[in-house]
Amino acid sequence: MKEYLKKYIKVIDDKLDKYLAIEDNPQRIIYEAMRYSVFAGGKRLRPVLMLLTCEMCGGDTDEVLPFACALEMIHTYSLIHDDLPAMDNDDLRRGKPTSHKQFGEATAILAGDALLNKAFEVVSAYSGNNPDRAMKAVNILAVSSGSEGMIGGQIVDMQSEGREITLDELRYLHLNKTGAIIRSACVIGAVMSGADSGAIKAVDEFSRNLGIAFQIQDDILDVTGTESELGKPIGSDAEEGKNTYVSLLGLQKSEELSEEYSKKAKQALNIFGEKANTLKELTDYLTDRRS
Amino acid sequence: MKEYLKKYIKVIDDKLDKYLAIEDNPQRIIYEAMRYSVFAGGKRLRPVLMLLTCEMCGGDTDEVLPFACALEMIHTYSLIHDDLPAMDNDDLRRGKPTSHKQFGEATAILAGDALLNKAFEVVSAYSGNNPDRAMKAVNILAVSSGSEGMIGGQIVDMQSEGREITLDELRYLHLNKTGAIIRSACVIGAVMSGADSGAIKAVDEFSRNLGIAFQIQDDILDVTGTESELGKPIGSDAEEGKNTYVSLLGLQKSEELSEEYSKKAKQALNIFGEKANTLKELTDYLTDRRS
Repeated sequence: MKEYLKKYIKVIDDKLDKYLAIEDNPQRIIYEAMRYSVFAGGKRLRPVLMLLTCEMCGGDTDEVLPFACALEMIHTYSLIHDDLPAMDNDDLRRGKPTSHKQFGEATAILAGDALLNKAFEVVSAYSGNNPDRAMKAVNILAVSSGSEGMIGGQIVDMQSEGREITLDELRYLHLNKTGAIIRSACVIGAVMSGADSGAIKAVDEFSRNLGIAFQIQDDILDVTGTESELGKPIGSDAEEGKNTYVSLLGLQKSEELSEEYSKKAKQALNIFGEKANTLKELTDYLTDRRS
Repeated sequence: MKEYLKKYIKVIDDKLDKYLAIEDNPQRIIYEAMRYSVFAGGKRLRPVLMLLTCEMCGGDTDEVLPFACALEMIHTYSLIHDDLPAMDNDDLRRGKPTSHKQFGEATAILAGDALLNKAFEVVSAYSGNNPDRAMKAVNILAVSSGSEGMIGGQIVDMQSEGREITLDELRYLHLNKTGAIIRSACVIGAVMSGADSGAIKAVDEFSRNLGIAFQIQDDILDVTGTESELGKPIGSDAEEGKNTYVSLLGLQKSEELSEEYSKKAKQALNIFGEKANTLKELTDYLTDRRS
């Protein structure tokens, strides 16, 4: 699977490289800061999910690629802002100094802002034959990363630090914080392919369950991983008083739950028959990962 | 003029009030923080400019209103992030505690992010008959607030603090930092009205000159205004070692220059005949203002 994904990752990275070309003008430092975080070794999970969903739905990956890159920019901006001293105050991300450690806090804030902006710049440069469809996709993107999506989840996460929350609250938090843009990755892939409402619904169901399975696995890895595998200190969730699936349910129950959501995710794709094989394999790969 | 503008401001505020309705869910604090800054007494200059340009070009203000509100959200997010301790570290804005003073730094960062997101949510909810035109307007919006627009100007501004810059550098800085979204206010108003390329070019020329005149006036007021008029301490630019038109040229030369740009702005609108009267009056009003 890792080998198979490489060709998709290359397509995404080449396009990101073009979108984020350094402009030789007085503000070039902002491009350097944007690139530093975007090319810091991310797995490109969200854009890959979008491209694979597009292929499953018979769409044109060229039309979808700007949206895939935009989603990676949005993911990256959220990490830059999350790492800030006023937020999680993290010094390392994927084994490298975080943006504010490298460029200073003010530039890190602006680099995050600029990536969020650039995401919408890139998708609104659409000039294809389906502006209605593209506008809908831009809207899905914006909603999923906003106050009823990712940012909503971040706020709830912040407010729940240091106090114990229920499993329902944890699920709500992650459905938004990490789940919303995993969902929009898949749903945009389907919408831009012209998929019908039944197919879009199935993709939504798949991605909703995948998002939770993915997050549980993240929580498990914070306990069972190694620093070299993850590129950050182990046990940081517990140290920061974060609520995780592992802190609420323990390791074994978390692993069972991850398996359960992963299974539900794959089932949702059955209507696509064999075309869903790659996404199903990716689901297994993600819930078995070590980093 | 102030009286005349009130009806436009009411339309904008009513729409902003709807867009930013508080959702009664676990993240409601983010809506409170977004509203706190959006309804802190801003002049609504940018959205008013967009509506007036739209009317001058014979467009439908209902189609333009979401873009006008989006621009005000983007302006507000930029102020929230600008005020942060890592940036200008301002405690007061329009006589009220800044967002991070009121809600804490983490929530202020996210409230800014959420407003930027919401701006694109609102404009991409477009469902009218000109999706191509609307997509173009979304792109103008994104470019003007991004790394080649407002954020680019903010970076250059940050880097120039504490060292003396040339008049050309100052002009470049402000063409981007404050000028870019004043320009996009007007150009989007024209584009969404279906204006032809000659009209769009004239509007662009108008708004480019207006933006500089407006900024010079801002710099003048920081020296000649009173704290009660401005809602913030007087002389803060000089104290922070900022380069301004006044610090570079002195007060009298700055006043002359403001007048010159204001004149150029109005001249650019001559092709619109009498229809341009309101925008011309607004130009005089803005370059004569006391706050």
